[in-house]
Amino acid sequence: MIRINENFQRLQGSYLFSEVAKRTKDYQLRHPDMKVIRLGIGDVTQPLAQSVIDGLSKGVSDMGRIETFQGYRSDEGYEFLREAIRQMDFVSRGVDIALDEIFITSGAKEDTANFQELFAGDIKIAIPDPVYPVYVDSNVMAGRSGKFVDGRYEKFIYMDTRAENGFTPDIPKEPVDLIYLCFPNNPTGQVATKEQLKRWVEYAEKNKAVILYDAAYEAFIRDPEIPHSIFEIDGAKQVAAEFRSLSKTAGFTGTRCGYTIIPKEAEAYDADGKPVSLNALWNRRQNTKFNGVAYPIQKGAYEVFTAKGRAECNTIIDYYLENARIIGDGLKALGISYSGGTNSPYIWLKTPGNLTSWEFFDKLLFGIQVVGTPGSGFGKCGEGYFRLTSFGKKEEVIEAVERIKSLKL
Amino acid sequence: MIRINENFQRLQGSYLFSEVAKRTKDYQLRHPDMKVIRLGIGDVTQPLAQSVIDGLSKGVSDMGRIETFQGYRSDEGYEFLREAIRQMDFVSRGVDIALDEIFITSGAKEDTANFQELFAGDIKIAIPDPVYPVYVDSNVMAGRSGKFVDGRYEKFIYMDTRAENGFTPDIPKEPVDLIYLCFPNNPTGQVATKEQLKRWVEYAEKNKAVILYDAAYEAFIRDPEIPHSIFEIDGAKQVAAEFRSLSKTAGFTGTRCGYTIIPKEAEAYDADGKPVSLNALWNRRQNTKFNGVAYPIQKGAYEVFTAKGRAECNTIIDYYLENARIIGDGLKALGISYSGGTNSPYIWLKTPGNLTSWEFFDKLLFGIQVVGTPGSGFGKCGEGYFRLTSFGKKEEVIEAVERIKSLKL
Repeated sequence: MIRINENFQRLQGSYLFSEVAKRTKDYQLRHPDMKVIRLGIGDVTQPLAQSVIDGLSKGVSDMGRIETFQGYRSDEGYEFLREAIRQMDFVSRGVDIALDEIFITSGAKEDTANFQELFAGDIKIAIPDPVYPVYVDSNVMAGRSGKFVDGRYEKFIYMDTRAENGFTPDIPKEPVDLIYLCFPNNPTGQVATKEQLKRWVEYAEKNKAVILYDAAYEAFIRDPEIPHSIFEIDGAKQVAAEFRSLSKTAGFTGTRCGYTIIPKEAEAYDADGKPVSLNALWNRRQNTKFNGVAYPIQKGAYEVFTAKGRAECNTIIDYYLENARIIGDGLKALGISYSGGTNSPYIWLKTPGNLTSWEFFDKLLFGIQVVGTPGSGFGKCGEGYFRLTSFGKKEEVIEAVERIKSLKL
Repeated sequence: MIRINENFQRLQGSYLFSEVAKRTKDYQLRHPDMKVIRLGIGDVTQPLAQSVIDGLSKGVSDMGRIETFQGYRSDEGYEFLREAIRQMDFVSRGVDIALDEIFITSGAKEDTANFQELFAGDIKIAIPDPVYPVYVDSNVMAGRSGKFVDGRYEKFIYMDTRAENGFTPDIPKEPVDLIYLCFPNNPTGQVATKEQLKRWVEYAEKNKAVILYDAAYEAFIRDPEIPHSIFEIDGAKQVAAEFRSLSKTAGFTGTRCGYTIIPKEAEAYDADGKPVSLNALWNRRQNTKFNGVAYPIQKGAYEVFTAKGRAECNTIIDYYLENARIIGDGLKALGISYSGGTNSPYIWLKTPGNLTSWEFFDKLLFGIQVVGTPGSGFGKCGEGYFRLTSFGKKEEVIEAVERIKSLKL
């Protein structure tokens, strides 16, 4: 008799964004005439930049001719793309990353979910609360969670991020093994300074821990003092892997491409305490379970790392940052406190009137047909909070803000 | 101190195809003037069909306009593609599969590697020998293998497939939990009859086992009596999941799209023996760890399931089947015995002169600059065998056969 992975039964409800999508769809089916504005799931609305379209088209065209047709290639991605990433994202910021430390993938969701496979089943996981649910659920599936008791898994170390600590996790008091960090943060919209990251790197060095650094939103950073990569911090290469995505940088949510940086210096340890290269482990993992990103997609992605393509993408990001400003100004006018909204696409707001997150979700959906994401879906500390995203169309964002102002709060 | 997943250390050498690619590259670097013919890794050489190129182009164009731009969509894939698959692959063969039993993915390598995540860590795995290495390695990484002793992992049940049983695995004598089957088979090129599959389904029913049915090469079946899907067998929906790929069906090795069928009737069991839906578990797995296939790729894939696109793809498959015939005829003329080559893109030959698989690999590479895949890389029973693929260019296949004939064997 074949038995299931019972860890799946410890997962709480359905995946957050599936649940939000389902409730929204149900409402829309019952009220087909109502115009719902979606600021919930962090999905972009602007089309791809023209340079990216041109790159994709070139890639497609190459697939139609025998001289330029592309079949299986190295799982880690084409060199033309990795070299462009190396130059634009790292060398230009004074960070030296080698080509074989860059892995092109289908996106940061997949990679941040898969990275935990490299580690033992009983390592101690430190996860911020609130947090992107993938970090939690992938570790639950892998059996690292223990039971779910009183809103939390017993074996995880939760790093509370609340108003009191500026919605940025504090360093754990005990030793942990794998630390999940995301800056600019999803969902709180906070960024980390070099000083803050330096303390994390020092903590990881001291405890022989590894940092999973999710930098999916780095393209939204406009403040020159804020680091885009954890590898801008000395010593980080020994203790961190960085996950990046074109989903928000270049509108690739439906085009799917990300990249993961695993330095050759990064290490974990076998049972005898002997260091093992994470780069080698990840390479073997990818060789065995992944077959690379479609060639046309990589051709399109390449354009994001040209001067012209990046300028076009930045124009789109500026558009979203303007949306964030509009939402933030609207909330300020209503006296609703929030975090994020600058250097970040996310606005993390305190629900008015002490509503629970799902109560506020229902109030917005049923009352004014605006969809956001309930903060409680990101963790216990998210209860009473709500996430809005700036990825909508500007006219809809303006309308959503007007509708929120019309609510009796 | 963060510890690694020590199961990775039980993996044997590097991933087979990476090793073949590495040795070939090393040779080519040392002998840049030599023309190497690659019949090793199963990579196609013909460009994508025109309909597919048109579909991809339409998809790219849609991404450049705000009215047609596509962002996140359901992880399981667009309905237009799933409906087309349902009709062409299943309804047309008298098999009723629902839309929500079809999951669009990046390919069968990823899916067959990931499927084992749904099951307990100590289930008993039955794997043919020789076999596609991904089935083995993904289970080793998951800790199901035990030690590697004398060429085999102690906890796996190996199903020897040799000349004596027609290179088709026999049903195990003991109960097992998860059975890996692949027809047309990689690497032996054998197909399974309905009668044979019926016995597997009965075995699985009796033992409450699940069959992972890899049908990545079904498009090469030309004999009308041979089933394309395990779901053509009564009762299979309760005990099987089927994995398909456009890599060989439509030349998508570098375009990346596959699909997995998990019927709602398919079940595994919790510790109390209560049945749990595999469809629901896979859905949750995909929701959490996967974000869908790029929209332009799905638009291209759709064309494979139109009458026009399929006809174009079949012309390409006929081209490869002709290559297989040429290789087979050449081997026959040399008195080399082999399996496969009809209804299949693979030729599995007995190495002449009792050479080991890698000795024959070196003899072909160094002697006549032809690259194949050493049978021993697929398992212990593959020692003394060698896999050639029919995915080359016809003129190169002819030349490779002439070169093989010139060898002193």
